[in-house]
Amino acid sequence: MNFNYYMPTKILFGPGKLNELANETFPGKKALIVISAGNSVKKNGYLNRLESILTNKEIEYVLFDKILPNPIKSHVMEGADLAKKENCDFVIGLGGGSSIDSAKSIAVMAKNPGDYWDYICGGSGKGMPVENGALPIVAITTTAGTGTEADPWTVITKEDTNEKIGFGCQYTFPVLSVVDPELMLTVPEHLTAYQGFDALFHSTEGFIANVANPVSDVYALKSIELIANYLPICVKDGNNIEARTQVALANTLSGFVESTSSCTSEHSMEHALSANHPKLPHGAGLIMLSEAYYTFFASKVPDRFIAMAKAMGVDVDSLPEEERPMSFVKALIKLQEDCGVHNLRMSSYGIEKEDIPVLAENARRTMGGLFEVDPYTLSLKETVEIMYKAYK
Amino acid sequence: MNFNYYMPTKILFGPGKLNELANETFPGKKALIVISAGNSVKKNGYLNRLESILTNKEIEYVLFDKILPNPIKSHVMEGADLAKKENCDFVIGLGGGSSIDSAKSIAVMAKNPGDYWDYICGGSGKGMPVENGALPIVAITTTAGTGTEADPWTVITKEDTNEKIGFGCQYTFPVLSVVDPELMLTVPEHLTAYQGFDALFHSTEGFIANVANPVSDVYALKSIELIANYLPICVKDGNNIEARTQVALANTLSGFVESTSSCTSEHSMEHALSANHPKLPHGAGLIMLSEAYYTFFASKVPDRFIAMAKAMGVDVDSLPEEERPMSFVKALIKLQEDCGVHNLRMSSYGIEKEDIPVLAENARRTMGGLFEVDPYTLSLKETVEIMYKAYK
Repeated sequence: MNFNYYMPTKILFGPGKLNELANETFPGKKALIVISAGNSVKKNGYLNRLESILTNKEIEYVLFDKILPNPIKSHVMEGADLAKKENCDFVIGLGGGSSIDSAKSIAVMAKNPGDYWDYICGGSGKGMPVENGALPIVAITTTAGTGTEADPWTVITKEDTNEKIGFGCQYTFPVLSVVDPELMLTVPEHLTAYQGFDALFHSTEGFIANVANPVSDVYALKSIELIANYLPICVKDGNNIEARTQVALANTLSGFVESTSSCTSEHSMEHALSANHPKLPHGAGLIMLSEAYYTFFASKVPDRFIAMAKAMGVDVDSLPEEERPMSFVKALIKLQEDCGVHNLRMSSYGIEKEDIPVLAENARRTMGGLFEVDPYTLSLKETVEIMYKAYK
Repeated sequence: MNFNYYMPTKILFGPGKLNELANETFPGKKALIVISAGNSVKKNGYLNRLESILTNKEIEYVLFDKILPNPIKSHVMEGADLAKKENCDFVIGLGGGSSIDSAKSIAVMAKNPGDYWDYICGGSGKGMPVENGALPIVAITTTAGTGTEADPWTVITKEDTNEKIGFGCQYTFPVLSVVDPELMLTVPEHLTAYQGFDALFHSTEGFIANVANPVSDVYALKSIELIANYLPICVKDGNNIEARTQVALANTLSGFVESTSSCTSEHSMEHALSANHPKLPHGAGLIMLSEAYYTFFASKVPDRFIAMAKAMGVDVDSLPEEERPMSFVKALIKLQEDCGVHNLRMSSYGIEKEDIPVLAENARRTMGGLFEVDPYTLSLKETVEIMYKAYK
C-alpha cells in the first residue's frame, strides 16, 4: 500500500475519435510523423486523415516512414536527425507499437546529444540521464497490443548486438493519445491474436509483479476480464466494432498497468527471442513462453493466480483448493486455443533448443530489471528451465 | 464507450509518504502555503514538517492561514494578492479539501486578472476562459473526503450571494499530490464519517452519471467497496492505519472518478444547503440528502444500482429481482447507521422546511451543469420533492 501514481497522457478513446483530434491543441507547429515501412496506414487512409487534420490546423509536417516491426536503433537516430534538420518541434507516432515506440525514442534523441544507447539501462547501455527532456509526443494507435499510448515505455533493438531493451522516463509519456478502435478493424487475424495476448501479459505480469498496487490491480483485473471475453470474438470477426473497442480498452488499461506496476521477466525472455530472431512477433514469442512461465509462478503467488482466474471467468470456488491457482493457466491455454494460437513453436522461427541457455543469459543481461520485480527471484538455471519447457 | 481520460497529477500514496516529498522536484522556488484558520496542521506538526522539507531544498515560502471549512471567495482574492506581492511561483495546499481547493483557486487568480467569479460557470459567474493558466499546485491532503488531490475541482462560496460553485480546468490539477494516511489519524470521528461519505458519493454519483465510462466505473466500484468495508472501522478506531489507508485510497479513487466522470445533482443540492448554512459540513449535507436522492434514481438506472449494491457486499443474486436496485439504498442506510450518521437532520443546522423550494432553485441555478449529467433529467418539482423527502 505504498506506491506512486503518474500517467499524465490525455487519451481520446472510442470509435471515431480520430476525427476529434481536430479539436485538440497540438503541442507544436511542425511535426515529424513516424510510421512503419509497411503501407497499411497509407493504404487504409489513416495517414491522409492525419495530414488533413494537420493542414487544417496550419501545422507543418515531415514524414519518416522506415520503421520495422521490431524497430531498430539506427532508425531512431536517423529519425532524430531528420527532426533536427527539419526543425520539428513535436513527434507523432501513427501505427502500432513499433511506430509509436520509435516516435518516443526519436523524441528523446532530437533533444539529447550522443547515441540512443547512451541512455539505455541494461546490456551495453550506458544508463546516462536524459537531461534535455524530449520533444512532445502524440500517439495514434492502430493496434491493440503494446499499451504504449498509455505508458512511457519504448522498446528498441540494437541490431549489431541483438539487444532489445525497454526504456522510458517522465518525458516519454505521450502528451496526447488517440485510441480509435475503427482504425483496428483491418488488423489481420493472427496479429490481432498476438497483440491481444501482448496486452493480456502486460496485465498478468503487472498483477503478479512484486510492485503491483491496488490501483494497478483494478486496471489489470478489468483488462484480463475484457481480453478473455472479447479477444476470441475479435480474432474470429475482425469487423466486430464492439469487440474491437473492448479489446482496445483492455489494451489501454494494460498500458496503465505498465505505468503503475511493471512487466516481469516473461518480457525479458521474449525480448531475447525476438532480438535474435526479428521475424518472431513479440506477442507470438510471449504466447510461446506463457504456459511454462505461469505454471512456474502459480505456486509462488497462488492468491494472485486465483484472482486472475476469476477475472477470466473461471468458477474458482467450485474447484478443489489445490487446483485453483493452476486454473488460471488452464484458462489461458483455453483462450489460446480459442484464438488459434496455442500451437506456436519457437522452432518455426529458427530458434534451436541448444540456443536456450544463451538466450536466457541475454534476457538476464539486457532486461535484468524485470527479474527483480518477479514475485519470486529466478536463478539462471530456473530461467533456462522455463525456456526449455516452453520450447517446441 | 467514447470518453476522454486525463488525470496528469503525480500522486505519492501510502503511510509515511510525506517524508518522500523531500525527494521530489518542486515546481518552483517560492511557495505560498495555504492552510486553514484552524490550528490542526500546526498542532499536529504537519506544517513544521513541510517547512523543514522546503527549507532543506532551499525553497522559500509564505504562509496564508485563513481558510474556513466552507472556503470563501474573499480569501481566494486575498491569497492571490499575497502570492503576487511575494512573487510566489507555486502554491501548496496543506490540509483538507477547503485548503487544497483554496490553493487551486488562488493559483488561478495569481495569474489572471479581475475577480475569481469572472471565471465561474453558473449562477452569477461570468464564465470567462482562464487565459493565463495557473501557478503550479502541490496538494498535501490530511483528510479522506474530497478527492481534490486527484481532480481539477475546487469549490468556493461567494459569500454575499450564497453561491457555492465548483470550478476546474486543465490548469487546476495538482502537479504533485501527497496522500499520507498517517496524517489522517487525528481526524475526529464525526468528520471521518462525513468525509468518507463525501468520497463515497463522488463515486456513486460518478457511477450513475450519464457520462460514466468503463475507466471511471472501475475506480468507482473499487472505491465503493473500500468505503463499505473500511469506513466503519475508521470511524470506530481512528488509529487503525490499515483502515485509514484503505479509505484514503477510496478517496483518491473517487477523485479519479471526478476527473473521468462527474458528480451529479446530489452535489448541487448540497451546495445550496451549505452555501446558505455555512456551519453544515458538506459531507453531512450529502448524507441528509442521500436516502431520498438514491431512492428516486434506483428505478431509473436499476442495473447501475445493482452493481453498486454488489460493490457494497450485498448478495444481490439471492434477492427477488424487484428488490435488487433498492438493496443499494438499504446498504447505504446500514453503512450510515454503522458510522453513527443516519440521524442527521437539516433542522439541526437551522434549515427550515419552507426554505426548500428556494434552495432547490439555488441548486439548479448555481450548479445546473450537474443536473444535465443525472441519469434522468429532474424537473424543479422533482428536485423540490427529493429535498422535501430528505428533510427532517
